[in-house]
Amino acid sequence: MIQQIQLVLSPPNDVRIPQSWAYRLYGWLMSQISSEFGEQMHLQGEHPIAHFLCFSPEKQSLIWTVNLLNDAARQVVFPVLESAKEIPLHELVLSVSEVHVSSAVSAAEIIRAGRSCSENRTKLIFQSPCAFKQAGRYAIYPQENLILQSLITHWNTTFPEYALTDSDALQALQQGLHIVDYNLHTTRYLLKETRIPSFLGNVTVEAHLAPPLLELWNTLLSFAPYGGIGIKTTLGMGGTTTAFQKRNFCT
Amino acid sequence: MIQQIQLVLSPPNDVRIPQSWAYRLYGWLMSQISSEFGEQMHLQGEHPIAHFLCFSPEKQSLIWTVNLLNDAARQVVFPVLESAKEIPLHELVLSVSEVHVSSAVSAAEIIRAGRSCSENRTKLIFQSPCAFKQAGRYAIYPQENLILQSLITHWNTTFPEYALTDSDALQALQQGLHIVDYNLHTTRYLLKETRIPSFLGNVTVEAHLAPPLLELWNTLLSFAPYGGIGIKTTLGMGGTTTAFQKRNFCT
Repeated sequence: MIQQIQLVLSPPNDVRIPQSWAYRLYGWLMSQISSEFGEQMHLQGEHPIAHFLCFSPEKQSLIWTVNLLNDAARQVVFPVLESAKEIPLHELVLSVSEVHVSSAVSAAEIIRAGRSCSENRTKLIFQSPCAFKQAGRYAIYPQENLILQSLITHWNTTFPEYALTDSDALQALQQGLHIVDYNLHTTRYLLKETRIPSFLGNVTVEAHLAPPLLELWNTLLSFAPYGGIGIKTTLGMGGTTTAFQKRNFCT
Repeated sequence: MIQQIQLVLSPPNDVRIPQSWAYRLYGWLMSQISSEFGEQMHLQGEHPIAHFLCFSPEKQSLIWTVNLLNDAARQVVFPVLESAKEIPLHELVLSVSEVHVSSAVSAAEIIRAGRSCSENRTKLIFQSPCAFKQAGRYAIYPQENLILQSLITHWNTTFPEYALTDSDALQALQQGLHIVDYNLHTTRYLLKETRIPSFLGNVTVEAHLAPPLLELWNTLLSFAPYGGIGIKTTLGMGGTTTAFQKRNFCT
């Protein structure tokens, strides 16, 4: 099972907190859990946490969204987040004004959600700086194949028992996806001394796919808000939300 | 010689004029010149005019920029534009409040401008909707190779006596160009019944090139405001301006 938890944070004196401070929040979180679990996550390589920090203009508040991507992470990390009142960082203390807990969901439930969704047009909103690496370089634009490949990689890591490995199906899936609209701008995500070239904004993807592949695509999209998109999702990058859009034409 | 002329237009009652009305302005322009010259341009395929319509927020005015890309176009079209007082379109009349004429320039002068410019970082601003076709589809993002290929095509059409055809040099040029920043969004350009998928915004290109290739690239960039970028520059698309940026590092 995977689970999302959101903390509404109040910086002192309305100090502006950069999104890359998600990295510091993650450092604090690791300091709160047993070193045994922390080391175990380090050894696994892929950490079962994807999170990001984002200012919500609608709610006029700073929200830290944390996705716990396996049962071990839920058991160890959830209690720390749920009971957090204050988060001391280097220079200041962030107080936690609200905690929103979503229900835990299984792979089977996400697959069912994908099946029940017949929309073929979806807006993907990159809520925190997103980046891809391709042939040793940072890819500057979120191409269809990069988005798809990243979603599959994150899915397969999180749900190895439901791993997507049929290369013919994945190729057919990729050929049926087209970005039809976008609004994007570059930014840099500061990690220690490195400024990672990345982008923020949104893309609208239209899927022209036979029903079984459309279900598969919509399953991956339903997973995107948990697993994120692109690299370094454990360090606050690639936080994503999705908006399925109705459209009156057949694929 | 090529030449740029800009007409500041005043719509009645501040009616909002869409950028795609450049196409109607072009229709008016063709109606003002001899049918012989018009037919000659049609037969040539590539028209020696690139133009676009753009609202300038700084000047709070609607500006029609017309580039005349050979001597024949200058001789025939320039007098019509220079003396225009009113432009009757379908539903309304646009009055011409100002006319700005730039000096005519030769290929040699543009090449000299490219040589004298040592900057290796340039912002390309897509002032009117820009699109590329690639393998029969509209390319959704302005990739480096698409921008370069388009600039070369327009250059070679305008200055066949200075045609760039050394494929090794062009490949080396392409490999040294990297988009490092952008702010882009999709739009549609309405041509008759067709809504062409296109984009507006800007990209910043950094050139890591040996001096002779940097001169060549800067020559193409100096030409961009005349020739435009992408498809259908004769119909008001791909209007471009450039801003060379200083940067303190060696290539």
